[in-house]
Amino acid sequence: VDPDRLQLVITGELARRRADVMAIDPRLAGMVDLLIGFVSAGGKRLRPEFLWCGWIAGGGTSGDGGNLDGHHGRYRSGDPETPVTAVLTVAAALELIQACALVHDDVIDRSERRRGSPSTHRAMAKVHADAGLAGDSEHFGVSAAVLLGDLALVWADDLYTTGAEALGAVQRSSSTWRAMRTEVLSGQLLDLLATADIGSGPAAQAADAMQVNRFKTAAYTVERPLELGAALAGAPAGTIAALRSFGADVGVAFQLRDDLLGVYGDPSVTGKPAGDDLLEGKRTLLLATARGALGDDPALLAELDAGIGTSGADPVRLAALIADTGAPDLVEQRISELVGSGLAALAAVDEAGRPVINAAARARLTELAHAATARRS
Amino acid sequence: VDPDRLQLVITGELARRRADVMAIDPRLAGMVDLLIGFVSAGGKRLRPEFLWCGWIAGGGTSGDGGNLDGHHGRYRSGDPETPVTAVLTVAAALELIQACALVHDDVIDRSERRRGSPSTHRAMAKVHADAGLAGDSEHFGVSAAVLLGDLALVWADDLYTTGAEALGAVQRSSSTWRAMRTEVLSGQLLDLLATADIGSGPAAQAADAMQVNRFKTAAYTVERPLELGAALAGAPAGTIAALRSFGADVGVAFQLRDDLLGVYGDPSVTGKPAGDDLLEGKRTLLLATARGALGDDPALLAELDAGIGTSGADPVRLAALIADTGAPDLVEQRISELVGSGLAALAAVDEAGRPVINAAARARLTELAHAATARRS
Repeated sequence: VDPDRLQLVITGELARRRADVMAIDPRLAGMVDLLIGFVSAGGKRLRPEFLWCGWIAGGGTSGDGGNLDGHHGRYRSGDPETPVTAVLTVAAALELIQACALVHDDVIDRSERRRGSPSTHRAMAKVHADAGLAGDSEHFGVSAAVLLGDLALVWADDLYTTGAEALGAVQRSSSTWRAMRTEVLSGQLLDLLATADIGSGPAAQAADAMQVNRFKTAAYTVERPLELGAALAGAPAGTIAALRSFGADVGVAFQLRDDLLGVYGDPSVTGKPAGDDLLEGKRTLLLATARGALGDDPALLAELDAGIGTSGADPVRLAALIADTGAPDLVEQRISELVGSGLAALAAVDEAGRPVINAAARARLTELAHAATARRS
Repeated sequence: VDPDRLQLVITGELARRRADVMAIDPRLAGMVDLLIGFVSAGGKRLRPEFLWCGWIAGGGTSGDGGNLDGHHGRYRSGDPETPVTAVLTVAAALELIQACALVHDDVIDRSERRRGSPSTHRAMAKVHADAGLAGDSEHFGVSAAVLLGDLALVWADDLYTTGAEALGAVQRSSSTWRAMRTEVLSGQLLDLLATADIGSGPAAQAADAMQVNRFKTAAYTVERPLELGAALAGAPAGTIAALRSFGADVGVAFQLRDDLLGVYGDPSVTGKPAGDDLLEGKRTLLLATARGALGDDPALLAELDAGIGTSGADPVRLAALIADTGAPDLVEQRISELVGSGLAALAAVDEAGRPVINAAARARLTELAHAATARRS
């Protein structure tokens, strides 16, 4: 996806939402601008990338590369750029869903920082304290973050409806949009349950981690955005099946890489403190695998269990303990297998022996599969 | 609206969403059933009532009164009941928006109870504690409530899209759906700001309270549901203008009645402790009016200000203090004026001198205006 065109659509749509809020009450500027700044600055824009690949794989036009000056992402009837702008509007919707997920996740995980800045609830708590407002600053921050996440979520739906309606694609894409949002929230609820359920054995923990990876990450980050793009373009079933198969595998591999980076990543590159996942007590396949391998060494297992989720523990020692079990190598192997099976799915052919994924989409998806699973941040 | 038919659609749609979640992971049953039970039990179903009135005012069919057996709220092509089911599906969407608003509001207000039961975050905290799960029960409860509110919000959008799409009405109704959700969240954010800003004088507080009433309550409870129903039916502009004018006035009157009940309501009827609003520090027109009237009596004003939002204060004394200022009478008078101007708006005629609101809708709206503003609970 052309990052400049995407950014133009995101910025234009957010400016319109901001105007809606300013018409209600200009005193909301500070709160709303915090949300808008977060979405505008953005992260990896991974979901828009996959949505765009699905669109191209489904036979959607990539446009003439022209600029959007003068209509700032709005549709002009008969404009050949209209379909591209409509798809990018749905891409902007995915970024807003992600904004809600991150803002609410940070409340749930009590995270202090996000993308190198204070998390939304921390930033709002600081605004409250600095202004000398009444009441508890921390609770004010959490309250504002809950509502700003909600606002991102309803705006996401508005943008999806706008884009899909402009393409005449509401009927053929709404079941995917529906599934994606129920899946990511179910994955988050499962994550909450799995994190609180520390009594289960390594095998059950590994299964839980993979279930959370599947719904909280893979479906929502890769599989459904690909399917959504393809559905918007009106792709045939074979194309959609291949994209989903690729997305499920590469999506899980993406999360497994995230898990390794959360323990062994370079803090100067990831932007997170070393071993942060260990001290937060995150339930990962990496941890479950290490616990399984330590089964015959109760002393080391007890040491590991005592340190996970304990803020005073030594993350370097815990990371070494896990490394010594060979778990990181097993997870690396799993990533390779998943990327391999994901890429293999792209080679599918239809009854007539024709590839279901066109060359342009396949080339880009191959690049993205490697980028998403071999990254350092 | 026929309460049995509405309930059938709500129950049927929730059962389908539940099945979606069970297909992801059956361990989510407990959490999701808490949300589903909350929506199924319901409150006053006020928003569906107004949506339905807008639909009837806009010329929508009221159906043949037949039953929905056999298709449980699903559309059958060519079925004369299809439009009715579609409108009731949008009504169910309004109930889910309300569920999100209440679940998240209870987190924000730290409310212990809702509709005679523990609030969602309290109920989830109890589940956590009873099951002996790891971590802080209260934070688990808040986290689960944030996610369950999000789930209600995304399901609301799914149901709106399903109903509006079935009526071919996405294009003519989506701007109202969009405005309503941005307005209610903006109203909630404003409420948060107004509650934290205790330094302003009575006039500014009265203006703030009315601004919150307008967006957090009136637009979202009456004005926009009426407009949405009318838009779904393809009503002319004159009908929509009259409905919105009625809705804005009656919606504010509804909130002013709520404010009076929050201080002087019978706890056995309202289900809330006497004077709860005073101890919670809720910023109302009633309170701002009383503070304004006490301006020439600094001692009484200081006593009132010291008690508001203070959990140890005596609500009976505070309620008496406010009553002595005459503020409740002024608020009663305001309610009467608003109901009067709201009902007057329904008498509007078009250029040809014909009523813009038909007799059936006008009769029902007149009933609802009185019921919503003269209620005891």
